Amino acid sequence: MIMEHIVNYIEENKQRFLDELFELIRIPSISSIADHKPDMVKTADKLKEMLLAAGAEKAEVMPSAGNPVVYAEKIIDPSKPTVLVYGHYDVMPVDPIDLWKSPPFEPEIRDGIIYARGADDDKGQSFMHIKAFELMINTGTLPCNVKFMIEGEEEIGSPSLGDFCDKHKELLKSDVILVSDTGMIAPDVPTITTGLRGLSYWEVEVTGPSRDLHSGLFGGAVANPINILAKMIASMTDENNKITIPGFYEDVIEVSDEERKLLNKAPFDENEYKNALSIKELHGEKGYTSIERTGIRPSFDVCGIWGGYTGEGAKTVLPSKAYAKISSRLVPNQNHEKIAQLFKNHFEKIAPACVDVKVNMLHGGQGYVCPIDLPAYKAAEKAYMDVFDKKPIPVRSGGSIPIISTFEEKLGTKSLLMGFGLESDAIHSPNENYPLEQFYNGIKTIPLFYKYFAEII
Amino acid sequence: MIMEHIVNYIEENKQRFLDELFELIRIPSISSIADHKPDMVKTADKLKEMLLAAGAEKAEVMPSAGNPVVYAEKIIDPSKPTVLVYGHYDVMPVDPIDLWKSPPFEPEIRDGIIYARGADDDKGQSFMHIKAFELMINTGTLPCNVKFMIEGEEEIGSPSLGDFCDKHKELLKSDVILVSDTGMIAPDVPTITTGLRGLSYWEVEVTGPSRDLHSGLFGGAVANPINILAKMIASMTDENNKITIPGFYEDVIEVSDEERKLLNKAPFDENEYKNALSIKELHGEKGYTSIERTGIRPSFDVCGIWGGYTGEGAKTVLPSKAYAKISSRLVPNQNHEKIAQLFKNHFEKIAPACVDVKVNMLHGGQGYVCPIDLPAYKAAEKAYMDVFDKKPIPVRSGGSIPIISTFEEKLGTKSLLMGFGLESDAIHSPNENYPLEQFYNGIKTIPLFYKYFAEII
Repeated sequence: MIMEHIVNYIEENKQRFLDELFELIRIPSISSIADHKPDMVKTADKLKEMLLAAGAEKAEVMPSAGNPVVYAEKIIDPSKPTVLVYGHYDVMPVDPIDLWKSPPFEPEIRDGIIYARGADDDKGQSFMHIKAFELMINTGTLPCNVKFMIEGEEEIGSPSLGDFCDKHKELLKSDVILVSDTGMIAPDVPTITTGLRGLSYWEVEVTGPSRDLHSGLFGGAVANPINILAKMIASMTDENNKITIPGFYEDVIEVSDEERKLLNKAPFDENEYKNALSIKELHGEKGYTSIERTGIRPSFDVCGIWGGYTGEGAKTVLPSKAYAKISSRLVPNQNHEKIAQLFKNHFEKIAPACVDVKVNMLHGGQGYVCPIDLPAYKAAEKAYMDVFDKKPIPVRSGGSIPIISTFEEKLGTKSLLMGFGLESDAIHSPNENYPLEQFYNGIKTIPLFYKYFAEII
Repeated sequence: MIMEHIVNYIEENKQRFLDELFELIRIPSISSIADHKPDMVKTADKLKEMLLAAGAEKAEVMPSAGNPVVYAEKIIDPSKPTVLVYGHYDVMPVDPIDLWKSPPFEPEIRDGIIYARGADDDKGQSFMHIKAFELMINTGTLPCNVKFMIEGEEEIGSPSLGDFCDKHKELLKSDVILVSDTGMIAPDVPTITTGLRGLSYWEVEVTGPSRDLHSGLFGGAVANPINILAKMIASMTDENNKITIPGFYEDVIEVSDEERKLLNKAPFDENEYKNALSIKELHGEKGYTSIERTGIRPSFDVCGIWGGYTGEGAKTVLPSKAYAKISSRLVPNQNHEKIAQLFKNHFEKIAPACVDVKVNMLHGGQGYVCPIDLPAYKAAEKAYMDVFDKKPIPVRSGGSIPIISTFEEKLGTKSLLMGFGLESDAIHSPNENYPLEQFYNGIKTIPLFYKYFAEII
């Protein structure tokens, strides 16, 4: 019965939903590039307007130390439970731009899939919550209080939101934080993310001579900072792909054999996985499966490297500087600040005297675990059953949403990660996309979650 | 006596010499960047015009497989000896452009020094020969035949000049090839370069997954091409900074202890050297001095590296590709084609199965040795004595002028490397410069070389 009015409402408003989402996507709100500051404010203003139109009784663009936070609420009865919806309106950079088949900020639907930066992560997924809220308001089915907090700095590690939570603890009080910023195993396999990895991210700079040198006149007698950086990076993982930073694994909790068995029951087809990425072989820490390598083990990845001559043709130069952006995904019990410091100490220690090094910690966040007996988890389970006719699978994701553990620490509230993305959505990559089916299934599932959550809690 | 008319001629024409040189420098003839093709032709045309104005009886812009070659001659008597002047009108790229204090192609004199790309290498030094030629013509002192061959592809390894020599063997016949494309130890220490290193230069591409991936969802399970490239580069030199490519040292001739002793008599102040480059420690092959490391030993330098996210801020990405430009300076008996192949084989062999690699050989050249009992060497010795009141020091340079060994092979003629550059000229770097004193001393010394060469040979 409830399904019918949901399906009807969506059917009647389908095109308007897309038009509105596309308006949001067209603003290039890239948080890591300073030039886009005005776009951040523009996006926040647009969201405020949309939340008011959807039925919020109050909506505000609130200042933070960085980009503004959009807050909105609809309190129907203070004695009823409250859901706090968290999302983010900032998006990742778009380079390499030439690999996009359509411009990243001009959303386009091809074969039932929306292509655009932010189509999934996280404009598309955040927007589902606004439309589900509108649906409940307009069909008179909102069963509890709702608050929205949509920030603009998630892709750079939410540096201001911790303080924002401290400052507005009372305002942000809720019984559960509802988040759609994760994915599903497959379109027909509903998934709740119960674990997230933490993150440490550094930029390093290695300086050799004070200026670029002629590689003939000096090559062989003066340290080349690229050669040195390559050696330093190479030394940080061993022949078994274990990270060599002293103390790095100290707080990693070894997962029991029993739990590892359960984890490996999640569907994983190695050949399909390799074919999807066009790789001939997998590569990772010895003694662990691919699911374990991304779910319960930390990683060490150079996200970017540059130095010397990178233009066309051959320039024989011994460069002055080399740079790298390096990140580690951490597992829940690892403290990201401790790891950040261990890396910095180690990197500085292994630098030979012939170069100078600088380590800049760019951002970090803790991992997170969500117990599957949480009332919100149970409510979500029922909601998914109604829409997909299947119980959701609880998975530990390799990704990081650093703010989720901050919420637990600052607000004392657990988050429920009810994501509708797919692995093929290419988030953070060229041709990010979001299938319409996922978008509408999200808008269907969310009101059902509210219904069961209000009943259970 | 001869000195007087030289000094007078230079004094009277000083400003015009500079005006003409600046005209040449203002054309941005960067050979490694395809967009500058029209500038190559413009520079060649300008040189032809200048050579005719200086007194050549014939000057031509001759086609080659690449950029044109400027040829000119003045045959005063076919029975007299012939000097073939070689130079190049192409220059290096200018990035990092923001480190230049004045625009690279707008020459500027500050404190008696010309600042511009090409001020020394090799427009400034080639131009000295045109003006010395003009001086000999206008003062009636040209004692022998002169030919000029000024090419436009030296900075990319002279890929077309070998064939050009084959084709025009008769035209290019001479008794010595005179080249100013090297340097002096100090403004008061005349220097003849008697050895040059060879060169091999590669670009490598390492491909992991077929697209950039989210480093959280995939990090730890999929090979990161930057991590892998760093490991591959790191493995190519050992803890003693010896190159590990199998067979790499096979043809390196170990220099005798006696010759090593002589080599190390060249002035070298380690602290001054380190201070000039702002480095705390030298770095190179174990068991050799800095002079030996650049003079008689090969090197292995990454000239450029790039991959992944290199913009502002933090982007958590597991990139699809990583690239490097890598070069080795070779010593005279090493064959650059053999080394190029050894590297390619080794690089492909050590690549793990989780990545694909491509190796592109960009260019190469042989090393060169000039005996110090050559008549031309003796003539130069006398010329330097007249101007500097000192015998020149024979040195083995770490740099490469691949075409010099090609001349020997194709034309059967030895080259005399009579360079007037200084280490502080920052060739190939931002703020390339050339002191006026070096420029005028070059124009003084060259006519004296012709005088003694015509007498000695």
